[in-house]
Parts: sequence; structure tokens; C-alpha cells
Amino acid sequence: VSGDRLVLDAEESHHLLHVHRAGPGTPFDAVDGTGVAYRCEIRSVERGLAVGAIVSRTEGSGELPAALTLIVGLPDPGPAETIVSIGVPLGLTAIDFAGCARSARPPLSDARIERLLRVARSALKQSRRTRMPLIRSSRSLAQALGLLAPGARWVAEPGAAPFASRAGLGPEPAVAISVGPPGGFDERESAALREAGFEPISLGPSRLTTETAAVTLTVLARNQLLLNAL
Amino acid sequence: VSGDRLVLDAEESHHLLHVHRAGPGTPFDAVDGTGVAYRCEIRSVERGLAVGAIVSRTEGSGELPAALTLIVGLPDPGPAETIVSIGVPLGLTAIDFAGCARSARPPLSDARIERLLRVARSALKQSRRTRMPLIRSSRSLAQALGLLAPGARWVAEPGAAPFASRAGLGPEPAVAISVGPPGGFDERESAALREAGFEPISLGPSRLTTETAAVTLTVLARNQLLLNAL
Repeated sequence: VSGDRLVLDAEESHHLLHVHRAGPGTPFDAVDGTGVAYRCEIRSVERGLAVGAIVSRTEGSGELPAALTLIVGLPDPGPAETIVSIGVPLGLTAIDFAGCARSARPPLSDARIERLLRVARSALKQSRRTRMPLIRSSRSLAQALGLLAPGARWVAEPGAAPFASRAGLGPEPAVAISVGPPGGFDERESAALREAGFEPISLGPSRLTTETAAVTLTVLARNQLLLNAL
Repeated sequence: VSGDRLVLDAEESHHLLHVHRAGPGTPFDAVDGTGVAYRCEIRSVERGLAVGAIVSRTEGSGELPAALTLIVGLPDPGPAETIVSIGVPLGLTAIDFAGCARSARPPLSDARIERLLRVARSALKQSRRTRMPLIRSSRSLAQALGLLAPGARWVAEPGAAPFASRAGLGPEPAVAISVGPPGGFDERESAALREAGFEPISLGPSRLTTETAAVTLTVLARNQLLLNAL
């Protein structure tokens, strides 16, 4: 983006020009991944790239009113992808697949994170969100906790009370939620979460997989953020 | 089940005796699909079937305190399976894949429903629920609405207010939730839902697929039922 001019990358240009058979004058929508959406019109094609004239821009469209970070104990690759593909449309702004005592595998490699970012990008566009989430894989829960901004914090824990929506969280700009790996957090990790201010929340009487628990807690936090913004 | 004796079917017997290499004396847990869980011990093997002695039984273990029915506008087969595999652990007691004006396909065949019931059975066991959900495919939304028991009713609708948890739903034994097919309910269907007492709920500012919207509304209703039971 420069001034009222926007150039699409090779992949998006190909999609627009060849899959959708668009040409000069065709209107299209674009997002830059930082929360800005653009209404555009194709002005020209330069070296295979579509160049658009920006007609209007909107900020934060499709986004929740606060940042929402999920720390989830590292699961297998399939469940990790499920969490990204469902959690991104639900508004997660950061997902940390944290290596935990009971995670059966090392933190995600850069190649795996690249792959999850592609899933996230596609989910972002489909859901009409505009801000690309961060995806990372901390070596430990302690490291993941060290990266959090201040704000409300909830952790899924069997035997706790269910989530009760609360009157305004106030001006807190960031909410963090956390779900254990398959097998759960160990005692040291649970203590670290309590110490970091995570309030325990019961997700109910049945046993949920890590990915379903992550989606469930995301939905509850999302709804709370929507209520706060009323 | 007869008296303090329980016979497993061929598939479960094979699993217990051959995959888990169990024999007379081995303890195991079983559910009958109607809400009863049994602690048992293998007593004998008769014609390849495991016969157990029932040590104790519990009622309603893993189940929500009320029935929870989802009416969802018929989506494609993949999303339908996602709804069953995530929605069953979350406590749905009935799922109706209703043919709607904008559903692009006829109601599910018996073979498709059989397949979804297998997915549900596996999800039920994994999640330690005990009551098998009903799965059906009504020819129309009107038919699906005609099958509902009285109780609280919520429908996902863009532009409405977010879900606000409410003080006790009282003694209502049944809650129904509804999500449109890809493309949404048409005007006549939306009017029928309002007339049937469905309260509109916003699921947020981004666009959710039918299956993610169904899971989201299920989570909100589940949490409300858990709060009611406190």
C-alpha cells in the first residue's frame, strides 16, 4: 500500500486476474493483515501483479474489541490445525502452542508454524477478519506466560465453576485463555497459572479433547468481549 | 443388561478381549446409551461375547442437566460430520439436519444418518457421556420445529445482541438452538423461528461457517445449562 495505490502479491493477483477473470475497472476487497480493509478497483496490471486504486478504507472490521491470546499445551498436528481453523474465525489474535510437561513432542518447527500461518490466512479471509493472528510455539508454559500482556485470564480446569459472564472487564485491552495438552497441565504448571492470575473455569461434565476445550473457552471469552463492548 | 449381568456386542467384545487382551476377572466400564454407566468385571466369554458382572451403576454421568437440541440448516457432509464430532462431546442430545430453502441438497439418507450415528457413538465414548443423541434430518424447518419440546430457544442471527447469561431458566427440561444453512435462513424461515419463540443471538463481527456457528451456539447454551444447575 502506498498512498491510494495498492499492489497485490503474485498469488492474490493470479487468483483475482485468472481465477476470477477480473480486469481493469473490476472492484475488489483487500485486507493488509494489520486490521485495515480496503475497497479497491483494478487500475492496471504490472508484470502480472494487480494494481488497485483504493476507494475507501475501514479499520478493525471483523475484529473483537480486545486482543485474545490462547495458550494451549502442544497437541498433535491435526488438532493444532483444527484449533487454528476454528479459532481464527472466532477472533483469536495470538495462539501459543506451548511445550508442556505432558506434551509428547518438541515445540513446533518453523516449517510447521509456516503451515499453520497459511491455514490462519485462509481462515482470516473466509471469516472477513482483517488482522492476522500471531502463531508461536513457546518452549515451556513459563515462557508463554512471560509473553502475556496484562488483562483478564481464564484457564480450563475440571471441577471449577462454569463461566459466569461478568460486568465490564473495564479498559483491559488483552484477555488470555489457556487449555492443557492432552493429559492436562501437571501440578507445577497449574500452580504457575494460578500465580499468573488465571481463574479456573469448568467446561462441563464430559471429557473434551484439547482442541474442543480450546474452541469452547475461546467461544466463552469471545462472547464476554462482545458483551463488554455493548 | 439383565439383572447384574451384561453382555457386550460382537464389536465391543472383540475390542475388549482381543485389542485389550482382557480375560475373566478384568474390570471394565460400559454404557448402554440411555444414560446409565456400569462398572463391570468380565465373568465369562460365551460364543465370542464378553459377559460381565455389574459391580455398580451410575445414572446420567457426563450428561448436561437438560436436553439440548440443535436444528441446523443442512450443510455438506464434511461440516455435518464436524458438527456431530464436536457437538456430541459438548452435550447435544438431538441434532436435526433440516432441509432449508437455501440448503443445496435433499435431506440426509438413512445411510448418511447411520454414518453420523457411528461418529456420534465414538464421540460419546471418548467424551465419557452416557446417553446416545438422536440424529435426524427433517424435510423442512417447519417439520423440525414441530418436533421440539417446550423450553428456551435461541437462534444465531447477525446484528442481534450477544448472548447474555440469564438467571435460572427455571425447571425447563429442554433447550433448542438453531443455526442456518450456508447462505442463512430465508425470510419465511426466520419468521417461523421468531414465531416459534427463538430469541436471536449475535455470534460476533466475523463471518462463521455453519459448523463453527453451530459449535459456538452449542457452547453458549451448554455453559448456560451448567450455570442453571449451580
